[in-house]
Amino acid sequence: MGAAAAVYTLWSRHLRHNPANPDWPDRDRFVLSPGHASILLYSLLSLTGYDLPIDELGRLRRFGSKTPGHPERGLTPGVELTTGPLGAGFAMAVGLAMAERFLAEHFNRPGFTIVDHRTFGLCSDGDLMEGVASEAASLAGTLGLGKLIFLYDDNGISIEGSTDLAFREDVVERFRAYGWHVQSVDGEDVEAVDHALLAAREAEDQPSLIVARTTIAYGSPGKSGTAAAHGAPLGADEVRLTKRALGWPEESSFSVPDEARREFQRAMPRGRDLEDEWTAQFERYASAHPAEAARWDRVVAGALPSGWDNVLPRFEVEDGPMATRAASGKVLNQLITVLDEVVGGSADLAPSTNTYLKGYGDLGFDEWCGHNIHFGVREHAMGSITNGMAAHGGLIPYCATFFVFSDYMRPSIRLAALMGVKTIFIFTHDSIGVGEDGPTHQPIEHLASLRAMPGLTVLRPADANETTAAWKVAVERSGPTALVLSRQGLAVLPDTGRIHEGVPRGAYVLVETGIGLPDVILMATGSEVGIALEASRALATDGVAVRVVSMPSWDLFEAQSAEYREAVLPVAVRARVAVEAAASLGWHRYTGDLGEVVGLDHFGASGAAGVLFQEFGITPEALATAARLSLARVGSDSQRPAHAADSR
Amino acid sequence: MGAAAAVYTLWSRHLRHNPANPDWPDRDRFVLSPGHASILLYSLLSLTGYDLPIDELGRLRRFGSKTPGHPERGLTPGVELTTGPLGAGFAMAVGLAMAERFLAEHFNRPGFTIVDHRTFGLCSDGDLMEGVASEAASLAGTLGLGKLIFLYDDNGISIEGSTDLAFREDVVERFRAYGWHVQSVDGEDVEAVDHALLAAREAEDQPSLIVARTTIAYGSPGKSGTAAAHGAPLGADEVRLTKRALGWPEESSFSVPDEARREFQRAMPRGRDLEDEWTAQFERYASAHPAEAARWDRVVAGALPSGWDNVLPRFEVEDGPMATRAASGKVLNQLITVLDEVVGGSADLAPSTNTYLKGYGDLGFDEWCGHNIHFGVREHAMGSITNGMAAHGGLIPYCATFFVFSDYMRPSIRLAALMGVKTIFIFTHDSIGVGEDGPTHQPIEHLASLRAMPGLTVLRPADANETTAAWKVAVERSGPTALVLSRQGLAVLPDTGRIHEGVPRGAYVLVETGIGLPDVILMATGSEVGIALEASRALATDGVAVRVVSMPSWDLFEAQSAEYREAVLPVAVRARVAVEAAASLGWHRYTGDLGEVVGLDHFGASGAAGVLFQEFGITPEALATAARLSLARVGSDSQRPAHAADSR
Repeated sequence: MGAAAAVYTLWSRHLRHNPANPDWPDRDRFVLSPGHASILLYSLLSLTGYDLPIDELGRLRRFGSKTPGHPERGLTPGVELTTGPLGAGFAMAVGLAMAERFLAEHFNRPGFTIVDHRTFGLCSDGDLMEGVASEAASLAGTLGLGKLIFLYDDNGISIEGSTDLAFREDVVERFRAYGWHVQSVDGEDVEAVDHALLAAREAEDQPSLIVARTTIAYGSPGKSGTAAAHGAPLGADEVRLTKRALGWPEESSFSVPDEARREFQRAMPRGRDLEDEWTAQFERYASAHPAEAARWDRVVAGALPSGWDNVLPRFEVEDGPMATRAASGKVLNQLITVLDEVVGGSADLAPSTNTYLKGYGDLGFDEWCGHNIHFGVREHAMGSITNGMAAHGGLIPYCATFFVFSDYMRPSIRLAALMGVKTIFIFTHDSIGVGEDGPTHQPIEHLASLRAMPGLTVLRPADANETTAAWKVAVERSGPTALVLSRQGLAVLPDTGRIHEGVPRGAYVLVETGIGLPDVILMATGSEVGIALEASRALATDGVAVRVVSMPSWDLFEAQSAEYREAVLPVAVRARVAVEAAASLGWHRYTGDLGEVVGLDHFGASGAAGVLFQEFGITPEALATAARLSLARVGSDSQRPAHAADSR
Repeated sequence: MGAAAAVYTLWSRHLRHNPANPDWPDRDRFVLSPGHASILLYSLLSLTGYDLPIDELGRLRRFGSKTPGHPERGLTPGVELTTGPLGAGFAMAVGLAMAERFLAEHFNRPGFTIVDHRTFGLCSDGDLMEGVASEAASLAGTLGLGKLIFLYDDNGISIEGSTDLAFREDVVERFRAYGWHVQSVDGEDVEAVDHALLAAREAEDQPSLIVARTTIAYGSPGKSGTAAAHGAPLGADEVRLTKRALGWPEESSFSVPDEARREFQRAMPRGRDLEDEWTAQFERYASAHPAEAARWDRVVAGALPSGWDNVLPRFEVEDGPMATRAASGKVLNQLITVLDEVVGGSADLAPSTNTYLKGYGDLGFDEWCGHNIHFGVREHAMGSITNGMAAHGGLIPYCATFFVFSDYMRPSIRLAALMGVKTIFIFTHDSIGVGEDGPTHQPIEHLASLRAMPGLTVLRPADANETTAAWKVAVERSGPTALVLSRQGLAVLPDTGRIHEGVPRGAYVLVETGIGLPDVILMATGSEVGIALEASRALATDGVAVRVVSMPSWDLFEAQSAEYREAVLPVAVRARVAVEAAASLGWHRYTGDLGEVVGLDHFGASGAAGVLFQEFGITPEALATAARLSLARVGSDSQRPAHAADSR
């Protein structure tokens, strides 16, 4: 209620949108970063004419309604982003603004501004306390994102009480230090907010923060300005008192004063005019620049050009050993030749993550058409910004860091999965193969922790060709993908055709040393597939028929038919070993009661990668020993319980 | 090399430490936040006389050396914190400084300053780009931590090139906005750094940042000031050129000029004198204040007073239903009555996480003896700061937020586990039981993702009494613990004595409906134990002998003997079902080839908690159906493979 006047001013006087078409590509974006104020957004959407009947507001926070507790992208027309986790909306908005700037540079032509919209947002003190917002604000200031404008609802109250308890910084000076244009206004003064928004729009080379001093639960006689109004509803009595204070009918719910309703109803015709105008311009643009217009239509639809995948490199055994991060870099540099919508970067690790698009420029300042983003050492904002770019549409954005630092950006990975946006996360240096940098830089639990996340496709390719196939999956998917890549060189597997068919299915039979059903199945991902192959040769020498299953993606495998899964991992073969230089958690599902897991259930260490694999027993010998143990179990028909199967 | 002069000045003229005793409790702390500069720290430790022979420097980054790639607490004498993940060291240093201030307030007496040390640190541009450092800096400024002093190695270079690419903010003004005392000096001018450190020490009510302008790889003729010097070694040729430029012997490695060596060698006698002086003072203090001295000795040793656990509440069935977060709040408020070293708080969620210590004051400003910390909405810094407090010693710190936001602080949870420090993480609102706040606030993958992390004990208690027992585990453990607690009320289980014996063992038999080996085992954690109990009653009515196993902690269970594990989950019982309102990942280890997992492999939704449990099939009925399915499988002796066992 405190921010209502400021947001009303923004929506009624500045926001260029068309409630009849929430997908109009050149609409202004509005982001409600404090998602817990969802009712404010739902009210605006409903009142301005989006397809959100006012009855839905009465179903707020109910199962199956279009008005969930926090705004959810894809569920409610006009909701651009899923918000609620604080700071995330603010940081994603930076990505929306970057997407606009990039697309404007790529598509606008003299006399044609096909892309020309602003990103507006509301943020709270909670948002601005979060590190992700600090990171994003610093980058937005560095880049000078003039079309990004945030209202800051400065109500001085957080859940625990006055913000003075924990937040005494000078927000105005902090944002000035980031390079923002900052104004302070009385947030309940509509004209003051209006003037500030005009000034913000005029500051074309700086993002803007308008500090709107407000009172929480403004209008409520008993609770305004108190922490009691933060997370909890006012309560029926206080609502009645509030209505009385405002001179509104006390017994009616969801009543809207006629004056406000009339103002809001102007949004529909205005929006139609705005979009019509844009459409007319686009038609002239399409005549003048048919190729650009066709490309625009394609990227906005999220479609791929036919034959795009012809550029994907295939690798030969002689190309190896090659780190999968290096192969990924080659794929990426081929993709960009056919997919101009590819844009991304890393958290100050482009040389290490092999994510630089050579010859495609650095995005920012005078080079807004550049495809390479320098995110700085800001993993969390990087993830959020990339999500914002993906949510904007028209782009295929990626971001990259060391796999262990996926922890820093985990909330943004989750939001990508929750929103179902096509963010491509590139995580290199994926195991103790990192070597000398030691345990702070060696992922252990990260594979399991990402595999547990719904909606995210995780791929850990075993070689350069699997990397190509994994990239193809990522580009074709509509949701987010994590590519988990090695630092160290890996032998290139002979491309028998199995790889390109197998990777999209998550797991496939890479090699069989015998004919018919194998005696034992070895399962592996990534750099450990090579270890499994070596173990299979040792076992074959002893006359054991071995099947090696490469398993780059559990979630893709789980999505296959029961028949396919049975063909890869036949029920009848109970001698099974999985090897992965990572936490064993989850593998027992595939190894079963009589199987073994050769994993790593402790942290790594600083030392040469080869030494670590030996010291920690991730070796062909250990795998062969585990296979013999599992074979012996099957032979003696002893049925040890799942939980007693040792993992190492 | 760029920061060497500034750090040398700090170590030789300001740092009060005793290389002969890295555990002297009143030592100044030094934190190297850019852990990749570990050689700088190792050199200082070795040269000033810590038990780190210079030969170990020659074994830098080798397996088994005391000089790993990044500094590791516990491995190298004098290394206070494990650093490397950027921003973490900076934020943990804030925790060290808070611990000092709290302990000083609690233990110092007129005429006795038993606790009086500073926290010094070095940070890099990478640290200051990270959000966690922003969060921690804002809180440090709010609290006015005058004894926290950071040198900022402002070399203008990051891995991708000039910091201008991504970091154009005005760091000086940003830190002033946070309330810090900020100075800018030439980092290669020893006298200027010295004066700045003196001025920083005099700014008693503000933390200090000394921006030391330096040149990366200072002294190297070919690489100074370039990104090429960031992550990679100089190379043999460049090292030779550097030595030539400095007039040092070109062929000798690890040579130390005599003048520098003499200066460093003064650290040992000076350190002995400092500690002797402190010890003499402490002896006088012990005479004057014997109770305080005894308490000091106890808390510094990390020991618990005998009988401390007598205060732990036991709950009766009539006390319920009670949310485990509420039970936790009661435990915490009892603990504080006997453990004065307990201190902590939440990320602006104290009322919701039930973590306020009533009557024990708010830490900060004029109330440094207060036990309640208001971290603000800064989960990541909260985790890091709490780790710093735990690493300091003398405290049992905790921190709290909603379980879903554990994602924000995951890097700090990992560092707690890696360092083995006793940080207690309280995570409430642990499932779809969150209800109306919806999927952004409902954890799904978080249990699996924390269970995969080595060194962390994860406990999800089923009721108020299990919560008490879980807290006992957390307080007695030396490493970190995550307590995962419900929002919603749960029935109190009759305390048969099994609970208090069972919880520390991770899993135990809660109920058996028959005699002898059961027909089927139902496994559950937290709020789903009640569902398992209800299902067991339904199955028992049908004549099925059911065992219900409560399994609050997988890692504690895995640490038990094979005999104990067999007693709880006998091999012979293959009909098994696990239920948990969370990702199913990992459960198949316990349910085995013929079992079932009733889990949640998709995101939640906004709606009443009860509705969500129904809609998503986490019900006694679904569990009973799954049990019958598993029983049928065992009956038909069909041996389906682990991977084909459906999870829901």
